[in-house]
Amino acid sequence: MNILILGAAGMVGRKLVERLAREGQLGGRAIAAMRLHDVVMPMAPAGAAFPVHGEESDFALPGMAERLIADRPDVIFHLAAIVSGEAELDFEKGYRINLDGTRMLFEAIRRVGDGYRPRVVFTSSIAAFGGPYPDAIGDEFLNAPLTSYGTQKVIGELLLADFTRRGIFDGIGIRLPTICVRPGAPNKAASGFFSNICREPLAGKEAVLPVSEDVRHWHASPRSAVGFLIHAATIDGAMVGPRRNLTMPGLSCTVGEQIAALRRIGGEKVVARIRREPDPFIQGLVAGWPRNFDPRRALSLGFRAEASFDEILRVHIEDELGGVIA
Amino acid sequence: MNILILGAAGMVGRKLVERLAREGQLGGRAIAAMRLHDVVMPMAPAGAAFPVHGEESDFALPGMAERLIADRPDVIFHLAAIVSGEAELDFEKGYRINLDGTRMLFEAIRRVGDGYRPRVVFTSSIAAFGGPYPDAIGDEFLNAPLTSYGTQKVIGELLLADFTRRGIFDGIGIRLPTICVRPGAPNKAASGFFSNICREPLAGKEAVLPVSEDVRHWHASPRSAVGFLIHAATIDGAMVGPRRNLTMPGLSCTVGEQIAALRRIGGEKVVARIRREPDPFIQGLVAGWPRNFDPRRALSLGFRAEASFDEILRVHIEDELGGVIA
Repeated sequence: MNILILGAAGMVGRKLVERLAREGQLGGRAIAAMRLHDVVMPMAPAGAAFPVHGEESDFALPGMAERLIADRPDVIFHLAAIVSGEAELDFEKGYRINLDGTRMLFEAIRRVGDGYRPRVVFTSSIAAFGGPYPDAIGDEFLNAPLTSYGTQKVIGELLLADFTRRGIFDGIGIRLPTICVRPGAPNKAASGFFSNICREPLAGKEAVLPVSEDVRHWHASPRSAVGFLIHAATIDGAMVGPRRNLTMPGLSCTVGEQIAALRRIGGEKVVARIRREPDPFIQGLVAGWPRNFDPRRALSLGFRAEASFDEILRVHIEDELGGVIA
Repeated sequence: MNILILGAAGMVGRKLVERLAREGQLGGRAIAAMRLHDVVMPMAPAGAAFPVHGEESDFALPGMAERLIADRPDVIFHLAAIVSGEAELDFEKGYRINLDGTRMLFEAIRRVGDGYRPRVVFTSSIAAFGGPYPDAIGDEFLNAPLTSYGTQKVIGELLLADFTRRGIFDGIGIRLPTICVRPGAPNKAASGFFSNICREPLAGKEAVLPVSEDVRHWHASPRSAVGFLIHAATIDGAMVGPRRNLTMPGLSCTVGEQIAALRRIGGEKVVARIRREPDPFIQGLVAGWPRNFDPRRALSLGFRAEASFDEILRVHIEDELGGVIA
């Protein structure tokens, strides 16, 4: 089978590429070739037993989607997006990439028109929701996003469902939790502290906590995110029914619970590296974010995430730190 | 104030134009001029005390939206749409008018960029929902439409909310019930029978009922639809909050209850003009339609519909039949 990955140079994209290269198959079918695309050149994975073609361009240019699907990928992972903060700052860029780019991809598939009907896995986000929320957001709660990014993601979800209903492709949209512990350097995303307060202390460095310990949020590890993508690529579409967009499972926990898990796993010396520095701006943003979900449909379809924050930390230590805590 | 009405030649559009011409004001402000647009030339209303300019074109052509808002209308009623059945049959036309046309209008307003910030009233539909439904669909139920028309309407709603949040305009989206009793000749819409079985017998003609009497649906009169539009144009946007799309109130009743009301108002001779002719195709479609809503937000914001089907019939007899039953 042929696979196309859009947004292959991002954090989750890279991990997906690595896992597919390592396993050499998807859903029991051998991978014949993989095309990786991003706005910066995606890294080729080490040791893939099949050809991997990397490509660097703006995927929302006219004709680009047609080129990218020219060799009829059986599975398309669409992870490409302008992220939340940037889509809010740059209105036109967010709509151009997140809405127009997604629609151009879907339209390019439609225009093939010879029975080509790939599985399309679309990454959406919990930004598809906006408050006020119930205690746990269920599978029938409305999508009333409060950012342009969230709006663009929900529009992508709606197009995905309609194009799937029409038989144009076989789409599954997955709403990712906040990914934690995110590897790499601390970034400026307002949600960065959820990862920073784990990753940095575990690596012997100080991290800043800008909110209080009772802040509750919805997390899954990068390994789980890749697992969601693989599962979404391989489940039987008929079991999903017409509602093609699924809130992924995750772990709802407070910052205090994160820190308690960090203490259990790394000890007091690790936890002592967290410096409290309240930031009213970040506190204000975080107050509007989802805290908890009840993702029954995804669970019943076999999607799985971590059951405790200890597990999320262990995944990070295994996958990123070679098992070693500083 | 200046008013622009897109879709002014449709049934609801015409009634809105007539009411605005009759009243000469909107929300207490005198109407200075009105521009009417549709794909066929809208009729000028009789006796308007202000200039009315009619225009016939495809509103989704490049540059058209800019032209239509050139005189900075204070209120824009956007009723233009490819209807449900046609949008399902003609995929490209539905997306071009219902999605691209709507976005072009919103973008044209954005590009004015000098503080111009009109009230935009967008007509959505209960087609924004898809089953399975709860007994009564509440204000927080998800939009998972099962038609391309419904998909396009929800995308319009999402854009409306985001553009409003951004301060580009001040939008209110209203999800209309099925309009009953629809005047004019019987049409081929699958929902036509809800009106046909009232309008035709009241005019001395036979009508066909293709479903059983226990079919439940959600109705409001044309007069209420116009009332919703006027109210949406004049309410304080700050009271609405960030969720700008509202399910309008309506009346949930069964076909049997419709017929009982018709009997109370027109007598047995009128009811005897309904001929039962079950149609499995229409029965199948109707089975997927919403039956009942719990539109608390719209009610709390002052939107009002009929409280009984008797009232809906009386509105029809007053507004369309000059008070006379055949």
